[in-house]
Amino acid sequence: MKIGIVGGTGDIGEGIAVRLSPLYEVIIGSRDEGKAAEAGQCCADLLKARGISCTCSGVSNQQAVDEADVVILAIPFRHLEPTLGDLTGFKNKIVVSPVNPMDKRDFFTFIPPAEGSAALMAKRLLPTGTRLVTAFNTVAANRWKAVDEELDYAIPVCSDDQEAKATVMGIINRISKLKAFDAGPLAASPMVECITPLLLNIARFNKMKDVGIRFV
Amino acid sequence: MKIGIVGGTGDIGEGIAVRLSPLYEVIIGSRDEGKAAEAGQCCADLLKARGISCTCSGVSNQQAVDEADVVILAIPFRHLEPTLGDLTGFKNKIVVSPVNPMDKRDFFTFIPPAEGSAALMAKRLLPTGTRLVTAFNTVAANRWKAVDEELDYAIPVCSDDQEAKATVMGIINRISKLKAFDAGPLAASPMVECITPLLLNIARFNKMKDVGIRFV
Repeated sequence: MKIGIVGGTGDIGEGIAVRLSPLYEVIIGSRDEGKAAEAGQCCADLLKARGISCTCSGVSNQQAVDEADVVILAIPFRHLEPTLGDLTGFKNKIVVSPVNPMDKRDFFTFIPPAEGSAALMAKRLLPTGTRLVTAFNTVAANRWKAVDEELDYAIPVCSDDQEAKATVMGIINRISKLKAFDAGPLAASPMVECITPLLLNIARFNKMKDVGIRFV
Repeated sequence: MKIGIVGGTGDIGEGIAVRLSPLYEVIIGSRDEGKAAEAGQCCADLLKARGISCTCSGVSNQQAVDEADVVILAIPFRHLEPTLGDLTGFKNKIVVSPVNPMDKRDFFTFIPPAEGSAALMAKRLLPTGTRLVTAFNTVAANRWKAVDEELDYAIPVCSDDQEAKATVMGIINRISKLKAFDAGPLAASPMVECITPLLLNIARFNKMKDVGIRFV
């Protein structure tokens, strides 16, 4: 299975690439192909130094979509609409949204678009037949990147496509100690996306770092 | 410290009473004083059978407010506005909202009032000077009541009154293995209240029971 990461040179994208590339063929996409190639090399070097072999290359965002079976949209919310407007070829692909629409003032707050969530906005922007899944929202970039440390968190997953949901849950359950949980249909994604600003508040007000969740 | 539970004969109220009455003087309030007295006796008997002494009595909701230092609003969201309309005497009291405005269709969903959360609606309904705190939202009624089992969950707490917040966090941290986390000001309460419908979805779609959260 090939996994493409749109926005793969950002913090979250790089971190996810490091965790996924020992398990799957990962294609890091970027608006800047040079940066993508660098990120791919950087990921491969990081893992090689630890004796871990991986398959990781850098391409354009469009190539990452075209070549992948599963596309992860590792972009900030403000880039979601323009990025999806620039790209084509999503139809029939599994597309994962880890996007959290939020704002920081005195504290972090969930600011959903009119559709109710970033994933539901993506649904409007993507062609019919795109197999959209909400996942990977709640793990901090620093945790993804800390390749020497286990990830022992819950990841809630939403989708209206049961097969796509099962595929993404399978991917999650192969990464470190991550545990995927079915959080219902895509319409339930607002409740998943708003966990991240909550976790950022918990970190901030309790002097913690990179807080994640478990369901018990 | 006296803790009054408005709506103390409901599932959540009874469960909280069982956990708090060995530690604090608990006054269970109800619209029906007879039911409140029964619930108080039931709580005392349950604990006595386990060799645990407690202070727990049943009164009217109004008495529970009048006599308590800390008032917990253990009522469903649909009762929040009418109940607060019927009661007086909240000014300068610490008032805890564990209320989650939600609806169940094919899945559970967060349906906040115009103010953004139940706690922010309570703020509008309560007199200026009420020391409002969001807490106790995310533990299932069955878990509260399972007095022979430890509660090992995180409880996020929001308030604009730092002293009231610290008092409520202190209460939480004395119950079993509960751990209170500062989740910011009252304006951050929507992100706390929407955890509960998420947890109900997680339970439902993963065949789990009474799911809670931990922050790690």
